[in-house]
Amino acid sequence: MHRRTFIKQSSLIAMSAGAFGAFDTNGKSLFDSNNLKVNGQRIEARINELARFGRDEKGHGYRVAYTKGDIEGRAWFMDLMEKAGLDVSIDAGGNISGKRKGKNQSLKPIAFGSHIDMVPDGGNYDGTLGSLSALEVIEVLNENKTLTNHPLEVIIFANEEGGLIGSRAIAGNLSAEGLKQISQSGVTMAEGIKAIGGDPDHIQSCIRTKGELHAFLELHIEQGGMLDAENLQIGVVEGIVGIVDWKVTVEGFANHAGTTPMKLRQDALLASSKLIIAVNEVINSLPGNQVGTIGKITALPGAYNVVPGHVTLGLEIRDLSFEKIEQLFGDIQKRADIIAADSKTKISFKREASEVKPALTDKHLQQKIDVSAKALGLTTKFMQSGAGHDSQQMAMLAPVAMIFVPSVGGISHSPKEFTKSIDMTNGANVLLQTILSIDKE
Amino acid sequence: MHRRTFIKQSSLIAMSAGAFGAFDTNGKSLFDSNNLKVNGQRIEARINELARFGRDEKGHGYRVAYTKGDIEGRAWFMDLMEKAGLDVSIDAGGNISGKRKGKNQSLKPIAFGSHIDMVPDGGNYDGTLGSLSALEVIEVLNENKTLTNHPLEVIIFANEEGGLIGSRAIAGNLSAEGLKQISQSGVTMAEGIKAIGGDPDHIQSCIRTKGELHAFLELHIEQGGMLDAENLQIGVVEGIVGIVDWKVTVEGFANHAGTTPMKLRQDALLASSKLIIAVNEVINSLPGNQVGTIGKITALPGAYNVVPGHVTLGLEIRDLSFEKIEQLFGDIQKRADIIAADSKTKISFKREASEVKPALTDKHLQQKIDVSAKALGLTTKFMQSGAGHDSQQMAMLAPVAMIFVPSVGGISHSPKEFTKSIDMTNGANVLLQTILSIDKE
Repeated sequence: MHRRTFIKQSSLIAMSAGAFGAFDTNGKSLFDSNNLKVNGQRIEARINELARFGRDEKGHGYRVAYTKGDIEGRAWFMDLMEKAGLDVSIDAGGNISGKRKGKNQSLKPIAFGSHIDMVPDGGNYDGTLGSLSALEVIEVLNENKTLTNHPLEVIIFANEEGGLIGSRAIAGNLSAEGLKQISQSGVTMAEGIKAIGGDPDHIQSCIRTKGELHAFLELHIEQGGMLDAENLQIGVVEGIVGIVDWKVTVEGFANHAGTTPMKLRQDALLASSKLIIAVNEVINSLPGNQVGTIGKITALPGAYNVVPGHVTLGLEIRDLSFEKIEQLFGDIQKRADIIAADSKTKISFKREASEVKPALTDKHLQQKIDVSAKALGLTTKFMQSGAGHDSQQMAMLAPVAMIFVPSVGGISHSPKEFTKSIDMTNGANVLLQTILSIDKE
Repeated sequence: MHRRTFIKQSSLIAMSAGAFGAFDTNGKSLFDSNNLKVNGQRIEARINELARFGRDEKGHGYRVAYTKGDIEGRAWFMDLMEKAGLDVSIDAGGNISGKRKGKNQSLKPIAFGSHIDMVPDGGNYDGTLGSLSALEVIEVLNENKTLTNHPLEVIIFANEEGGLIGSRAIAGNLSAEGLKQISQSGVTMAEGIKAIGGDPDHIQSCIRTKGELHAFLELHIEQGGMLDAENLQIGVVEGIVGIVDWKVTVEGFANHAGTTPMKLRQDALLASSKLIIAVNEVINSLPGNQVGTIGKITALPGAYNVVPGHVTLGLEIRDLSFEKIEQLFGDIQKRADIIAADSKTKISFKREASEVKPALTDKHLQQKIDVSAKALGLTTKFMQSGAGHDSQQMAMLAPVAMIFVPSVGGISHSPKEFTKSIDMTNGANVLLQTILSIDKE
């Protein structure tokens, strides 16, 4: 990691243990940490402030990683981190780190954070809530002159939406090939990382050692509608689902739509429609929370008057169990074989390299979150994360935990994404109390 | 119509009745016209020669209307017409006319022809067979010094593939709005018509009076696989189907494919798949030759990880009966309503303005074709044309007839389009004999 040149040394000094005066002789804060509460208004105000970066004249958000909006948003965020006395640096992958000393510097740091980049025309809460709540935890500890036993570290991961690029780099899973890929911003990952102050030529310098962190925690909006629908306040995440994508090709025969009788057609779109319904039926055939989606379709040649001869589809299956994903895919293949034979088409599947393994969170940390939430009088639900998160990369290095708060209507990756102020405050308080609880162990 | 400036006056003179010397005193040819036969090798050689115009270095044909290939192909064709002694002109719609005098100039002309433009990367027989066979009829009459009673007219329609543009102009169905539309070539219809020698500013000057032609005949490849599959030689076309297109919109709700449980989805692509299958079932639910096609689909936002929220489809129904098209569409709407309610989506249909009314051919002319074919020892089948043709515009002005010959495998609008030499020769002989038979009435 290379330190940012404009870091304020004065704030670093203020961070030394005992620099506040309110500790008793055992180093215990005179304030009861159980009573510490976050400032929900501050979190919300900062979310709105951050949303301004990258917003176009039409009000569409475009804080896509490596773009101007991202770069300006990061600068604003780092400034706040420094003002909060954190020791701020950017690692080779472009991830922002802000460190706060603990009473016992020989203890492993407790890390927490999220990301502030967004999908094109996305929402204002995805990633930003966890990032600004992590900063809020530091502010509350500062304001209450509370020093934890463990050192703390706020991590703001770079380019989460582009495929967990920053956290992959930290976990050692960002290959030279991956650095060459074109990001949503139009530049390669390597160029983008350089643009935000990283060092792609020495990307391995940011790899963290397994076991160097005591824990990693991430607060995030659910991005699904379960907590909202069930009117629950806190989701205790049991794991982040694995994801496998397949490119499906359906080959029929393109022919004149006026002169080809119905019974002589080899209609690739009709066969595809049967396959899309079969995928839905297979996914729903087993109990559980697995999801299967056909999100992409292209039919060629694509004219009113031509029977489609060639269709490509995008199939994605997600589940906490990789075995279940394989089983479901096997069932889909069997259905595809029958459809192909019946429709005189050829159906083939090509597994994409982008595959993500499921990541389970730490059971002990799950309990800590549940207990902390209940102590605050909040209702909880143990659930899976259907979306990918940096925590799944961090799970390879440290025990991880995730806290979910409700997304209204389950809407995400959309300007309509919304989480109520009270839910954000609840989530941040659970994050704070869970950190303090882990710290006391 | 404005006459081409380079027309050879000498050939016009040669066309005057009696300019040959081989007629008896009653004006009857000394040759028995029943024995006249086309030169099949000449037709095939000219089809191959015409195919060279607009062909790119990869061998793909691109004689799309108004492009360089079309313009050069038309010049080559007009040259042949003039060499055959026709009085050649281009009308305001860009259609080529080649006239041959009859013994009795007060009789209405018998017209025949087709088109020589093609779809991008199309085949070598669609339109060209009918055009070169029409020319062949003239060549055979010339070579056998045969003068018909009726004047004859070869018509080569402009931009058939772009929506019967030339024949619409002749029938008075090309609006000012239609002239502004962008053609496949990239220029507007008006600009394209100008490029091929037409006069879009006076487009109405090419409108023909209803009843001015004795008949219009068109020889064409079937473009379907029925004659080929049944091993029949001549199709007697009973009519050209009507065509109605609808833009179908399926509105669901786009959401995160990982976090949206299966039961909470409003998947517009899943609903569309059910609709595509329903369309197929409805079309097959009635006896007859009707066809229904979904040839276009777009699903947005179109990513592996997003449940599609918005799908547009292109629906087309064709039949000889407009009432049947309406009935089938009504059934499809009922099925759509059920699918929309079940899938929590909204399905709407917008009828396109491009609607084509069915056109029936003349029953008397059908019989003439059937008798002429059988006299040549050929097998026939009465059938509909599922594809659109200039004849359907001409049917508004004159009795029309169409002769089909087999397309191998029913393939059309493709470089694989193929009709055997013997079938082309058979079709041209039937065209010749039918014209002579009509002329004798």
